[in-house]
Amino acid sequence: MALVKLLEYADAPPAVRAVYDDIMRTRGTDRVNNFWKALANDPALLERTWSQVKQVMAPGALDPLVKEMIYIAVSATNGCEYCTYSHTAAARAKGMTEAMWMELMAVVALANATNRLANGLRVPVDPQFL
Amino acid sequence: MALVKLLEYADAPPAVRAVYDDIMRTRGTDRVNNFWKALANDPALLERTWSQVKQVMAPGALDPLVKEMIYIAVSATNGCEYCTYSHTAAARAKGMTEAMWMELMAVVALANATNRLANGLRVPVDPQFL
Amino acid sequence: MALVKLLEYADAPPAVRAVYDDIMRTRGTDRVNNFWKALANDPALLERTWSQVKQVMAPGALDPLVKEMIYIAVSATNGCEYCTYSHTAAARAKGMTEAMWMELMAVVALANATNRLANGLRVPVDPQFL
Amino acid sequence: MALVKLLEYADAPPAVRAVYDDIMRTRGTDRVNNFWKALANDPALLERTWSQVKQVMAPGALDPLVKEMIYIAVSATNGCEYCTYSHTAAARAKGMTEAMWMELMAVVALANATNRLANGLRVPVDPQFL
Amino acid sequence: MALVKLLEYADAPPAVRAVYDDIMRTRGTDRVNNFWKALANDPALLERTWSQVKQVMAPGALDPLVKEMIYIAVSATNGCEYCTYSHTAAARAKGMTEAMWMELMAVVALANATNRLANGLRVPVDPQFL
Amino acid sequence: MALVKLLEYADAPPAVRAVYDDIMRTRGTDRVNNFWKALANDPALLERTWSQVKQVMAPGALDPLVKEMIYIAVSATNGCEYCTYSHTAAARAKGMTEAMWMELMAVVALANATNRLANGLRVPVDPQFL
Repeated sequence: MALVKLLEYADAPPAVRAVYDDIMRTRGTDRVNNFWKALANDPALLERTWSQVKQVMAPGALDPLVKEMIYIAVSATNGCEYCTYSHTAAARAKGMTEAMWMELMAVVALANATNRLANGLRVPVDPQFL
Repeated sequence: MALVKLLEYADAPPAVRAVYDDIMRTRGTDRVNNFWKALANDPALLERTWSQVKQVMAPGALDPLVKEMIYIAVSATNGCEYCTYSHTAAARAKGMTEAMWMELMAVVALANATNRLANGLRVPVDPQFL
Repeated sequence: MALVKLLEYADAPPAVRAVYDDIMRTRGTDRVNNFWKALANDPALLERTWSQVKQVMAPGALDPLVKEMIYIAVSATNGCEYCTYSHTAAARAKGMTEAMWMELMAVVALANATNRLANGLRVPVDPQFL
Repeated sequence: MALVKLLEYADAPPAVRAVYDDIMRTRGTDRVNNFWKALANDPALLERTWSQVKQVMAPGALDPLVKEMIYIAVSATNGCEYCTYSHTAAARAKGMTEAMWMELMAVVALANATNRLANGLRVPVDPQFL
Repeated sequence: MALVKLLEYADAPPAVRAVYDDIMRTRGTDRVNNFWKALANDPALLERTWSQVKQVMAPGALDPLVKEMIYIAVSATNGCEYCTYSHTAAARAKGMTEAMWMELMAVVALANATNRLANGLRVPVDPQFL
Repeated sequence: MALVKLLEYADAPPAVRAVYDDIMRTRGTDRVNNFWKALANDPALLERTWSQVKQVMAPGALDPLVKEMIYIAVSATNGCEYCTYSHTAAARAKGMTEAMWMELMAVVALANATNRLANGLRVPVDPQFL
């Protein structure tokens, strides 16, 4: 038995179905990912989280593909398996090529390395940055 | 006394000066940041790290500004003060507006939140992603 | 072959059996979890760790269920699969309802988000807090 | 010069003032913390974040003080200085004693330790948890 | 006012003084670091933590200097300022040269980089390791 | 379908084969791990990463086995499954005994615990360290 119960559409109360419908409509798909089926155990959490994702990931000052790549960068840094799978798929669907993916990974790796050099050596912030 | 000694140009051996010169030439500046002055205590580490940064952050499949923003995303996730200051400055120098910065932060915050929802609920990866 | 050998009761030396017995007695069960069977490869590490868990997780200024939820919050933040499974089970055994679990996850997600907003924007600590 | 500009009430547009007013009213104070003044550079981010905090941290299945302690556990785990200061202050204001704080810290320390024992030894999840 | 009160020897109860005395005797110094003065707000937490440090960091299957360097590796990875300062000082006192320190940092940086390449690309574990 | 494609020797272009050959020659084996087969999707990333590993992990001011143990410490702290498996195997091949492994884990656990005590209590760095 999994840790969390996944709530299917057929079993979901109206408030959850409304979110599922909006997810499928917004994404142009007839499938709801497990992440949302897990959050649905708390309809208010589901609604708040989806509302955030919908607003934050929409086009704005940054391109949606750039946002997906930032999402991958964070998920790889934190080691989140689920989010790495789902957002890499999402980024590919939005046009991320294998070359872009590898370059993204190279930046993520480098940043994680130099973050620790700066932290471990306790490099003082340059005065012009403060 | 700081933890790490910062090696100034005037005191640096030729191998270190060569890297400092390349940093200043590549970036079109006459200043070398503290990060490099700290790494200079090990000239081979300095040379390898600068060489990586120069290659990875150059234009490629991704735009240099996008790469700087990915760098910020990782640094904010890891809580690296030095890297957050220096790469936010670098991103601004490459054209990141305040609106882009805030939107970047919103994505970073959301990804860090949903990473923990997925990890804490142990959401199984959807079969279509595997 | 797994990375770590799990030491079963039948194969364990007396010092390990004594800890296993105390774990089962304290928890009112006849089963020892894999975590302890892994630590048993170093009886001193097993003994020290169990002794810590027994003292720290006992009733005190905080309620044992609150402590289990704090354990889950840390484990979800760090992405520890084993600890998330075992402490969610422990919290449920101590009375955590699904509503409490979801609310706990919502706080964990929010804290992980705002931690990065504060770190990424380098918000100065308010003087009244220092 | 700090990385982020802090937007004071006097300089804030109406949408930001409305959030500041709600923060002060909800908390019964006449002060708005720097965190909100930093987010105010993006009124939509400010509004969304405050709305989340207001909903998630309100009384529910969990006590508000328990929620503040969970917030501290996450912030200490992530090393967020700002959040550690502000949420420890908030928890104290809601009744957290020094004994409770120390016990909270003991649980956070222990969980961070055992998370790494489980991850480093790759302890297999017990079948009864799956 | 700092977040935590530092308990000085003169103001400490006998149980705390006993630990302070043991720290100073074990380390051959007449100074107790702030870390211990902070933990002293909970004498049981102080005693348990010192007892762990004393046992774990003593000579055993690993050399004490190697242990200090492992401590630095973890502290730099987590971005713990206090621990980075104190354990770098401790490692230097035990013979860590600048060349060793830099090489340690190079390994820490590399491991943090490749950890994210493996996690971000979701590289399957080779069958011979399982 | 896995997230990343693993590039086998038979299908690899000459630049990738040259790195694979160097890996097998350097390590005295006829096998290339999945990690390298994943990076091979970007031959430049593969070459840079292997070159780093070869230089950083070679004998120097620190012993190669000590370096492998530092690698494990970082990987366990970050929760990187792949790296934990592969570097524990590498350390064992270089002579790490079970007793050394357990002691390493004990240091890693302790450091992760005290990092959070220092961060959560915001212990001020002792003046003699600054």
